[in-house]
Amino acid sequence: MTHKSHGMWGGRFSESPSAFVQRFTASVTFDKRLYAQDIAGSVAHATMLFECGILTRQEKKLLIDGLQKIKQEIESDTFNWRIELEDVHMNIEHRLTELVGDVGKKLHTARSRNDQVALDMRLFVRDATHTIITQITKVQKALVAQAEQHKTIIMPGMTHLQFAQPVLFSHHLLAWCFMLARDAKRFAFCQQMLDCCPLGAAALAGSSFAVNPQHTSNLLGFSQPVMNSLDSVSDRDFIVDFIYAAAQLLTHISRWAEEMILWSSVPFGWIDLPDALCTGSSIMPQKKNPDVPELLRGKTARVYGNLTAILTLMKAQPLAYNKDNQEDKEMLFDAVDTATDCLTATEALVRSLRPHAEKMHSDAALGYTTATDLADYLVRGGIAFRDAHAITGQLVKQAESNNIGLDDLPLAMMQEICPLIQDDVYKILTPIGSVAAREHIGGTSVESVERQIAYFKAELGIDS
Amino acid sequence: MTHKSHGMWGGRFSESPSAFVQRFTASVTFDKRLYAQDIAGSVAHATMLFECGILTRQEKKLLIDGLQKIKQEIESDTFNWRIELEDVHMNIEHRLTELVGDVGKKLHTARSRNDQVALDMRLFVRDATHTIITQITKVQKALVAQAEQHKTIIMPGMTHLQFAQPVLFSHHLLAWCFMLARDAKRFAFCQQMLDCCPLGAAALAGSSFAVNPQHTSNLLGFSQPVMNSLDSVSDRDFIVDFIYAAAQLLTHISRWAEEMILWSSVPFGWIDLPDALCTGSSIMPQKKNPDVPELLRGKTARVYGNLTAILTLMKAQPLAYNKDNQEDKEMLFDAVDTATDCLTATEALVRSLRPHAEKMHSDAALGYTTATDLADYLVRGGIAFRDAHAITGQLVKQAESNNIGLDDLPLAMMQEICPLIQDDVYKILTPIGSVAAREHIGGTSVESVERQIAYFKAELGIDS
Amino acid sequence: MTHKSHGMWGGRFSESPSAFVQRFTASVTFDKRLYAQDIAGSVAHATMLFECGILTRQEKKLLIDGLQKIKQEIESDTFNWRIELEDVHMNIEHRLTELVGDVGKKLHTARSRNDQVALDMRLFVRDATHTIITQITKVQKALVAQAEQHKTIIMPGMTHLQFAQPVLFSHHLLAWCFMLARDAKRFAFCQQMLDCCPLGAAALAGSSFAVNPQHTSNLLGFSQPVMNSLDSVSDRDFIVDFIYAAAQLLTHISRWAEEMILWSSVPFGWIDLPDALCTGSSIMPQKKNPDVPELLRGKTARVYGNLTAILTLMKAQPLAYNKDNQEDKEMLFDAVDTATDCLTATEALVRSLRPHAEKMHSDAALGYTTATDLADYLVRGGIAFRDAHAITGQLVKQAESNNIGLDDLPLAMMQEICPLIQDDVYKILTPIGSVAAREHIGGTSVESVERQIAYFKAELGIDS
Amino acid sequence: MTHKSHGMWGGRFSESPSAFVQRFTASVTFDKRLYAQDIAGSVAHATMLFECGILTRQEKKLLIDGLQKIKQEIESDTFNWRIELEDVHMNIEHRLTELVGDVGKKLHTARSRNDQVALDMRLFVRDATHTIITQITKVQKALVAQAEQHKTIIMPGMTHLQFAQPVLFSHHLLAWCFMLARDAKRFAFCQQMLDCCPLGAAALAGSSFAVNPQHTSNLLGFSQPVMNSLDSVSDRDFIVDFIYAAAQLLTHISRWAEEMILWSSVPFGWIDLPDALCTGSSIMPQKKNPDVPELLRGKTARVYGNLTAILTLMKAQPLAYNKDNQEDKEMLFDAVDTATDCLTATEALVRSLRPHAEKMHSDAALGYTTATDLADYLVRGGIAFRDAHAITGQLVKQAESNNIGLDDLPLAMMQEICPLIQDDVYKILTPIGSVAAREHIGGTSVESVERQIAYFKAELGIDS
Repeated sequence: MTHKSHGMWGGRFSESPSAFVQRFTASVTFDKRLYAQDIAGSVAHATMLFECGILTRQEKKLLIDGLQKIKQEIESDTFNWRIELEDVHMNIEHRLTELVGDVGKKLHTARSRNDQVALDMRLFVRDATHTIITQITKVQKALVAQAEQHKTIIMPGMTHLQFAQPVLFSHHLLAWCFMLARDAKRFAFCQQMLDCCPLGAAALAGSSFAVNPQHTSNLLGFSQPVMNSLDSVSDRDFIVDFIYAAAQLLTHISRWAEEMILWSSVPFGWIDLPDALCTGSSIMPQKKNPDVPELLRGKTARVYGNLTAILTLMKAQPLAYNKDNQEDKEMLFDAVDTATDCLTATEALVRSLRPHAEKMHSDAALGYTTATDLADYLVRGGIAFRDAHAITGQLVKQAESNNIGLDDLPLAMMQEICPLIQDDVYKILTPIGSVAAREHIGGTSVESVERQIAYFKAELGIDS
Repeated sequence: MTHKSHGMWGGRFSESPSAFVQRFTASVTFDKRLYAQDIAGSVAHATMLFECGILTRQEKKLLIDGLQKIKQEIESDTFNWRIELEDVHMNIEHRLTELVGDVGKKLHTARSRNDQVALDMRLFVRDATHTIITQITKVQKALVAQAEQHKTIIMPGMTHLQFAQPVLFSHHLLAWCFMLARDAKRFAFCQQMLDCCPLGAAALAGSSFAVNPQHTSNLLGFSQPVMNSLDSVSDRDFIVDFIYAAAQLLTHISRWAEEMILWSSVPFGWIDLPDALCTGSSIMPQKKNPDVPELLRGKTARVYGNLTAILTLMKAQPLAYNKDNQEDKEMLFDAVDTATDCLTATEALVRSLRPHAEKMHSDAALGYTTATDLADYLVRGGIAFRDAHAITGQLVKQAESNNIGLDDLPLAMMQEICPLIQDDVYKILTPIGSVAAREHIGGTSVESVERQIAYFKAELGIDS
Repeated sequence: MTHKSHGMWGGRFSESPSAFVQRFTASVTFDKRLYAQDIAGSVAHATMLFECGILTRQEKKLLIDGLQKIKQEIESDTFNWRIELEDVHMNIEHRLTELVGDVGKKLHTARSRNDQVALDMRLFVRDATHTIITQITKVQKALVAQAEQHKTIIMPGMTHLQFAQPVLFSHHLLAWCFMLARDAKRFAFCQQMLDCCPLGAAALAGSSFAVNPQHTSNLLGFSQPVMNSLDSVSDRDFIVDFIYAAAQLLTHISRWAEEMILWSSVPFGWIDLPDALCTGSSIMPQKKNPDVPELLRGKTARVYGNLTAILTLMKAQPLAYNKDNQEDKEMLFDAVDTATDCLTATEALVRSLRPHAEKMHSDAALGYTTATDLADYLVRGGIAFRDAHAITGQLVKQAESNNIGLDDLPLAMMQEICPLIQDDVYKILTPIGSVAAREHIGGTSVESVERQIAYFKAELGIDS
Repeated sequence: MTHKSHGMWGGRFSESPSAFVQRFTASVTFDKRLYAQDIAGSVAHATMLFECGILTRQEKKLLIDGLQKIKQEIESDTFNWRIELEDVHMNIEHRLTELVGDVGKKLHTARSRNDQVALDMRLFVRDATHTIITQITKVQKALVAQAEQHKTIIMPGMTHLQFAQPVLFSHHLLAWCFMLARDAKRFAFCQQMLDCCPLGAAALAGSSFAVNPQHTSNLLGFSQPVMNSLDSVSDRDFIVDFIYAAAQLLTHISRWAEEMILWSSVPFGWIDLPDALCTGSSIMPQKKNPDVPELLRGKTARVYGNLTAILTLMKAQPLAYNKDNQEDKEMLFDAVDTATDCLTATEALVRSLRPHAEKMHSDAALGYTTATDLADYLVRGGIAFRDAHAITGQLVKQAESNNIGLDDLPLAMMQEICPLIQDDVYKILTPIGSVAAREHIGGTSVESVERQIAYFKAELGIDS
């Protein structure tokens, strides 16, 4: 490495880092992804320096023109990224000085890479949250459309993966939609947590120049500047908040990925996944594997790993900036990419889901799923719930030992166990009757589903 | 186990669980901690059942009186918790029937343990967040008081654990205070995420009774009932949100615990921790160990473990309730207790912190901490920042090889490297000069610190 | 707190810790579980001190008698644990001095709590690994017995949770047995990693007395003393190794817990779990929930949490002992208890598993599971595998669109696609034919299963 | 996508995966890293097929020649990796058929990607463990060389980051060396765990061809073939074992990275790190930041993240292969690269470490580090250790309040507290005396250090 190449910070150094150390410590291979944010920050910084009388109008213009030129070079892939310049900041500054001459050396006045990277990361996360919230909305719209289309299909609701009570397929889909609504709130919360501009903190103590952090904050669209310079350069909360929000999102996605996998298995046979979202086997010609939901489930692990990593990274770090934090970038980028890809895949899955209504409905009658309705029937007849529960248990046992459904039990057999039971009992023993009875808010009836659909249409701005 | 003891759900069972399985599957040893929430929920549920005409006024009264009696028994430690009754819900219901007779068997009408435990957990987390936000406020007040008392003490600010620039001790303390402000917001967000009442969901599909979930929601102080019964009994987001907020809180606490440990070490010697927060050695009579900050740092690991565990627990769970979720309680309780204890310990630490002002101040002059001020001085003289940075690097090297401070460099020696330097340079080379120059918002000057103190006094409602 | 109560290390302290700090920093509430190991270590230490001439024979005798007395007190629950004495070590030492007088104060000669706790933990983990390896062996024996009993039952083998190829139920059970064999090796490795005696390290530097670490090592059954005192008191690798081994064990257990849950669901219906390992529902009288496998799956998360926690705890700890390490105990104890309980539960599950042979067998013919056999048949007829794979794909498509099995395809229809197919094809299209063909080592044929059973009988010392 | 491009498994598919799904599900962008292992496995497989009479000698030759050609193409970077061919296996097989014609289609006989990737991963991990064990040995040699060079330098040993007792710098370095010895054992254990050849399992059930798994196992250097095909394709234990071993390795590295950072800070000033392993500041011209140890500490978090991720990935996966497992590769590769790079960096750090012997030695006398020696002195005078500990506590208090060292206390002042103290006490109050007294195995004396060095020289094969 020549003097020139590490001249940025090398005044006091007599040794040249070896190639290994250069690669080991450099971040440009991954942090170049922050170029747009870095340039936006530099434009705002230069503007503020001019407003505060630290740069002339001409200097400001030169710098901003140079920065815009660099942006074009990067986006047209003609920029020469150099690992010996360590990071995105130094690469851009170095090129700026090549382009605009010595005035380029003035850009870093009243600034440090410490507040610069803090800014870049905030801007990057802000952008990512916007993208992801938009994607979440799309998946929600797809869910609402499916729920509306298949509103009345009945399926077995399960607890403990055992058939429990009949529910509407549409009701189940909307449960997913509520999970996503919370995810969107979590990303919106992350936006609040990053909404302070860290510029002005310089290395850690602020600057000896009379800078105006309120001004850069305004220019960059933040609500306010950070009020404490040490916090400004040390705070990575918003990154952890983002990765956490992604972890929760993926948890939710993994839950329905699991359901997609189960439901499309041979024994369930409740849904069909389109060939486009499956792949085949290199050996078994008949296989159609639910690769996309399996990958969604698997990628959840990846984001949990990122969360463990970022928390561990931050633990016990003394203030202010430590080099450990260079590691935060790849974790964040991986979480952003995984969340984005998984939302795209999820939307495709939801849009293309085809329920097998008949299989779902016939299964909904298996497993004595209306036993609770029977117990409730007995309660309405005046029996206390616990006693009704016990009586129903006996009736189920009876049916089970005869290998028939509850609604196949002859009335006489029922009355032997509980004389109170009358012929009207059969009406409530069907899945349709069971579902219809649950009209209250939150219940699985069609009315309740329609309330939920109306709610989401209003929330998401869908025309009816 | 007699018929009686597992009569709650045992109608269809012919075998009795072995003692091991009973212990392995029971949760009462830990979930009895939810008794107050469970009883509050049952009172609201009974009230709603009466309002909806499902219970008589007299039945409601009997149930509520019985529940209040049970609460007293539990709080006076005369309640007989029985492991064969599985959990807090069944223990209380069973005792209720003992106390009030058969009407006790009516309480579970239109309810399941699935929505019951979902409610209990929401109420418990809601209570915990209130406690913790109050505790955070106390620590913040202690920090503001310390910052105000020691407003002008100068210490070395560090990056990479290397002395970087002088900062005010009070500025450093207030950086911690801003971290805590974010923590409080995170717990407040958790309150929003849990603010729906899950009652009415029953097992998973809603109830066939004409219940009024809005009514129980109002009675229990929620903004609204959950709109989807499957989501109601499956959603544990708020628990994960809580544990995550605790993990971030502990991350912050671990950062200053680390600083307490460093600062109270022999080589630093910047602070003194009171004997009350230290312990001694069983072998080394001279030792005074910073046990409390060390434990704070260590307990961070514990909460990260809880977060990994709860996320892993929720991953890929099909809807609705699965027994896996029984495990969520101990993770949550441990996070609540750890966060609460650690905040108590932190407040004690902050209140009793004694800075060694002279050692801090003299160290602040070591390590060429005013080099940036020198570079800035050169910039003000017309040199571009990058060039100023390089020149200053040479001056530092000069001083280092003479083993003296920057302000000990003779003017002539400086001018040899940069003729622009004049006698006024010495003024900006002191820690006091360096700190004073950083007046802008976020900077480390006394003015900036006063702004921050005023901000927190307003936020926290402290009288000036 | 009186002088007496914290007299153990309190010479230099003028303040008394508050009750909170006492509770916050004390470990006796959980580390008393180490009492047997602590006493065994003290007996060995006293013996060595005597052998080295540091204690008289009479002093040694008094100490050892006192220690044995304390052991009895603890085991008969008459020992008075005192939180103000901090930990198990101080509680025992303090009681010892009460019992034997001033000679009790000599026991801590040439020792520190730092090497004492390092020893106690090694002994505890050593004991735990023995218990767990024995338990693993029991589960393996149960698996081998089940495999032998149900050797020829055919079930659908799955990849991607899609039916893939027929396999023997016994073959599947033995796959679990191989996982457990690796787990046993992992715990045995942990035994190697802890097999050094840390006594003699004292606080961190060794002792100024002429102690004989080789002697205590021999007395306590270790292969050798630790050769470096700093490592001796800092090393917690063996704890992390144990928790890791437990995490892997639970991963395996979670895999078959998942299968138990799936297989006992209504759509699969492949196995029956005994009532003793299931529980019922408080609302749905017909439910029989697979609580035990669900809890096994859930408890996996808990051990992952412990692993994250212990690693995070150890990260970046400077040598030698830090108070953070007090936290390692509860993580370890929880992992030990969870692993032990889960193995007990798993053994019960395996022993009581009842396969539904007919349902398994009839399902094994669904999903075109013999398509690979058909492709292999074509290869034997001279077609390259890839081409055979493609042809079989077409045949499957044909069968699928006619909604029939491969073996229901008329020969003429097959020959239209591939003239090479002859009447003998039907023999290889059955699950029995498919399984029988896989005789080679590792394959799913009965011969291969018998080889595996013979292997495990030899390994586990089971009489045929 | 044309028929040709997804012809590998596409017989039954009527839709073409969209570009997104192709990218989302493809692994070739990262699994191409397995090309050498994949080709080695195919060569062995083809050889076995020939030996078993399934391929002709000529076919075998064509296939192997084609595979060798492909290896050259890949290594000379002329191979055209195609994402529509999904993974490394299909890319190579497709190219093989291009090169050698239809015989290429025969290679996949009696094989599946499921056993193929299981093999590739085992071979890859086997290679990685060899590399890493070699690297560990190099770091150990560097440590032994440093310990030998600086054998007698005394420094303060610390517990709780408080000065505790004097130790030898060489003793401290050798503590690190023992940690590494355990790490090497852990990677060697991983080699044992992967030492079975999975070929022959095909998709999950074995093959209907009369293959010879023992033969491929021999050819590929394994001890034996896997005995159970379901385990063969499901087992990823060895990957988790590897990542775990890497996590422990990084834990150790993070512990001394922390010490490097502390020791090179201004207040400690115990060591100097070479410029080559540090970087400068973009704003503070005087800064020399310990970037390399900071990154080592930070990268620990990354490997913990990988461990959390791989465990979560494997949890609750039903047998046999699931697509989730595609995710295991990037986690593994990242752990391999991080471990490898960090060992390189660590070796560079160790080799270039320069201790400041005088600062270390003078600090070793601070903090009353010989108080234990004083207590031991009193014990030798006949006082019980606990009483000696209390008396020494008082002497320390006395010295502290006079702001002097223990060896500055006048004899008279000492005798006032304990008349037994004589003039010979001063000899044991120096760091040199303290260190010299700890001659026993494990102690910090020069003799003990020499024993350790001799041990490692023998273990590592270093000539004296």
